[in-house]
Amino acid sequence: MSAEKISSPKKQIYKPGKIKGFPEWLPEERLVEQKWLDHIRRIFESYGFTSIETPAVEELNVLLAKGETDKEIYTLTRLQQSEEENSETRLGLHFDQTVPFARYTAQHFNDLTFPFKRYQMQKVWRGERPQLGRMREFLQCDIDVINVDHLPLHFDAEMAAIIYEILCGLEIGRVQLRISNRKILLGLMESLSIESSDTITHIFRQIDKLDKLGAVQVHKNIVELLSFNEEEAIKKARLILYFSCEFSGNFDTLLDEITNDELIDSSNKLLQDGLDELGQVLFSLAHLPEGSVIADLSIVRGLDYYTGTVYETRLLDIPEFTGSVCSGGRYDDLAGTFINKHLPGVGISIGFTRLFDVLRHHGYIKTGAKTPTDILVVLADEAHRPLAMETARSLRAQGYNVETYHAPQKISRQLSYAEKKGIPYVWFPELGEVKNMTTGEQSKAEVERWTKS
Amino acid sequence: MSAEKISSPKKQIYKPGKIKGFPEWLPEERLVEQKWLDHIRRIFESYGFTSIETPAVEELNVLLAKGETDKEIYTLTRLQQSEEENSETRLGLHFDQTVPFARYTAQHFNDLTFPFKRYQMQKVWRGERPQLGRMREFLQCDIDVINVDHLPLHFDAEMAAIIYEILCGLEIGRVQLRISNRKILLGLMESLSIESSDTITHIFRQIDKLDKLGAVQVHKNIVELLSFNEEEAIKKARLILYFSCEFSGNFDTLLDEITNDELIDSSNKLLQDGLDELGQVLFSLAHLPEGSVIADLSIVRGLDYYTGTVYETRLLDIPEFTGSVCSGGRYDDLAGTFINKHLPGVGISIGFTRLFDVLRHHGYIKTGAKTPTDILVVLADEAHRPLAMETARSLRAQGYNVETYHAPQKISRQLSYAEKKGIPYVWFPELGEVKNMTTGEQSKAEVERWTKS
Repeated sequence: MSAEKISSPKKQIYKPGKIKGFPEWLPEERLVEQKWLDHIRRIFESYGFTSIETPAVEELNVLLAKGETDKEIYTLTRLQQSEEENSETRLGLHFDQTVPFARYTAQHFNDLTFPFKRYQMQKVWRGERPQLGRMREFLQCDIDVINVDHLPLHFDAEMAAIIYEILCGLEIGRVQLRISNRKILLGLMESLSIESSDTITHIFRQIDKLDKLGAVQVHKNIVELLSFNEEEAIKKARLILYFSCEFSGNFDTLLDEITNDELIDSSNKLLQDGLDELGQVLFSLAHLPEGSVIADLSIVRGLDYYTGTVYETRLLDIPEFTGSVCSGGRYDDLAGTFINKHLPGVGISIGFTRLFDVLRHHGYIKTGAKTPTDILVVLADEAHRPLAMETARSLRAQGYNVETYHAPQKISRQLSYAEKKGIPYVWFPELGEVKNMTTGEQSKAEVERWTKS
Repeated sequence: MSAEKISSPKKQIYKPGKIKGFPEWLPEERLVEQKWLDHIRRIFESYGFTSIETPAVEELNVLLAKGETDKEIYTLTRLQQSEEENSETRLGLHFDQTVPFARYTAQHFNDLTFPFKRYQMQKVWRGERPQLGRMREFLQCDIDVINVDHLPLHFDAEMAAIIYEILCGLEIGRVQLRISNRKILLGLMESLSIESSDTITHIFRQIDKLDKLGAVQVHKNIVELLSFNEEEAIKKARLILYFSCEFSGNFDTLLDEITNDELIDSSNKLLQDGLDELGQVLFSLAHLPEGSVIADLSIVRGLDYYTGTVYETRLLDIPEFTGSVCSGGRYDDLAGTFINKHLPGVGISIGFTRLFDVLRHHGYIKTGAKTPTDILVVLADEAHRPLAMETARSLRAQGYNVETYHAPQKISRQLSYAEKKGIPYVWFPELGEVKNMTTGEQSKAEVERWTKS
């Protein structure tokens, strides 16, 4: 929408347009968003993660330290900047929370206790072309654990448990965690003597297209990539495909396959480590419901970054939400650009705004009240104002969110206000009664003893 | 601090400087900040205020709609902006939450229910010269109630009660609310036949300097401003000064003064309305402790904006914090620039970051733990891992924040981790015991029955 000038007899009105890619919710939607964010924060904290917030901006040099110019950075300029100030450090809005977290860790290294478990729930900005589920301003919910030199595998399993608990608690249907370990496919390549990094990249691209192209076509394409000996290539491609499948429970058959296959060097350390680590992570998650965690060796995203465990998450009951709700994995070094320390970590990121916006768009989010108010206290007439105010104060002291109606208007009008805002209870202090707005039932109640039903 | 390059045998390190005016807290400081923000949100909601969030940016035209160029706006530019995109709407970071709230209300007018009670806790940005308590990025906590055409005085009292409850709950000593009504001084001017707006402005400036100059000097200066008749001027200046005093409880003497003074037109409507409204607001706050609310007729700030009740707040036990922690008042029209509706409102704003930063700087904020974790579950050895994990899960289900130690290291090392992070309890699942890290006491405990002491 473009802005337009509307002339009125009284005054000039400037009617601003909506800014594409910068979402904004109505109060009833915001209440659901807050409930979700509170839930996410509660689970993060229940595992001992602590909050940090970084400024919206970083030095442009920091944002570009890894050469990430594809992220469409917004830079800042002061509207009234004078010439002498042109020498000020150039600032840009952060495009993710990983770069700021790395900078934070490097800058405050001596004040942090390791392993450092942090969560971060902030807006990030990218000047990309907006569309459904792709915003220019969006909220990310990230957790990471980092440690100096060595990070136990313990945390790889913890990440998965946290994400599962969070997504289940949002009540958006069945959730499926898909886990792999980067070392397995890399080790498989080594053990099959596929050494050209070009060939490996191409094979991984094929694996990534499994869903689209199907196994037969991908197999054919991989055979073509491994052109040195057709018979061997067919077998190797078959193995690669086998390793790119989903495993749920029958992980052992994969191990047998490796040990028995003449083509694989089953003593390959990378491969063995990968399988061992993935096995341990899956074992730690055995208490979760069947089918909620699967090994999916075909996860090849973020190959340049992740070095061990990798995660993706699917919403099984929301077909409109394609791809992964939240992804992450283990990386070898967080902040090497900014500090001369070796800081391996494991982390996962929930693309919150994308999730919320897509689900909202497709009607999966049921909004209710327009206010957090539990009880509206009726103001019958001016004479009862002190009683109404006192009643409201007492109910607040019991932990309820309470409004006193603001003027001694007709009761029907006060009830209508409660109804429009979705306030579930209306209290009549002069009668000592409370009305349940859902059932319509009105009954005697005492402030100190009453509880929400 | 400026950035510097450090060369290392291994790799090039880029050591970023701190960006002035963009505060960032350590985990233990952030935990206190979160506690404060949670408290503020809880009180806002307990009075039925609902959250909204607006994007970080607005159209530059919206930000400049009232000609507020003195607010040092940051504008945005895409780093990779192509020439064809130069026609994109110019965007700037919001410098307060009032302009975005006005734009939001105008844009979503038909979806809102009035009176609309909203709170907003977001960062705002101003490119000002940074110093202690003045940041370029800071958090504001604002509440406003707006209504169509008419807003009952009920809300003027509610604002004051909310702010008092919030500031008391932060445990930063005695809090004093100072309230006035803009109509009183304006009505006094009218009733003393002081009509030149220039003279009125100068008189108000003198009143604003009362603290600095003292009553004798201010009286002299006002007499000079009212030069038409010295004897009368002296009397009028005396009256103006009398009206600029603080009243706590003895508000009636002021009313007597008005009725009895020959110089004042005591039937002046503006004056009477102002006194009446202020009286009603003070009456509604009579339940608050003595001395916590006073009438201070000398509040003259924001004269161009506020039209009725005005608030300021002082921290009586924190001499280093000068001026008002949070200020606000009643205004005649929120969004007249953006919509052809008359929307009077009353609101108040807590300059959160300024408060937090100044108190932190002067040592009033006691930091404690570096993590929200309540309990660390010891991992005695690998064999006990399933028990440790199971114990942690059960304690989490009881509502506690729980970490399982990540590796079967020496117990002393695990205890030291808890101590460094300030975790108050350490649980030994294989012993069925819990250690209180503050008292050092270790005792038998069962997961289902244990409670924090």
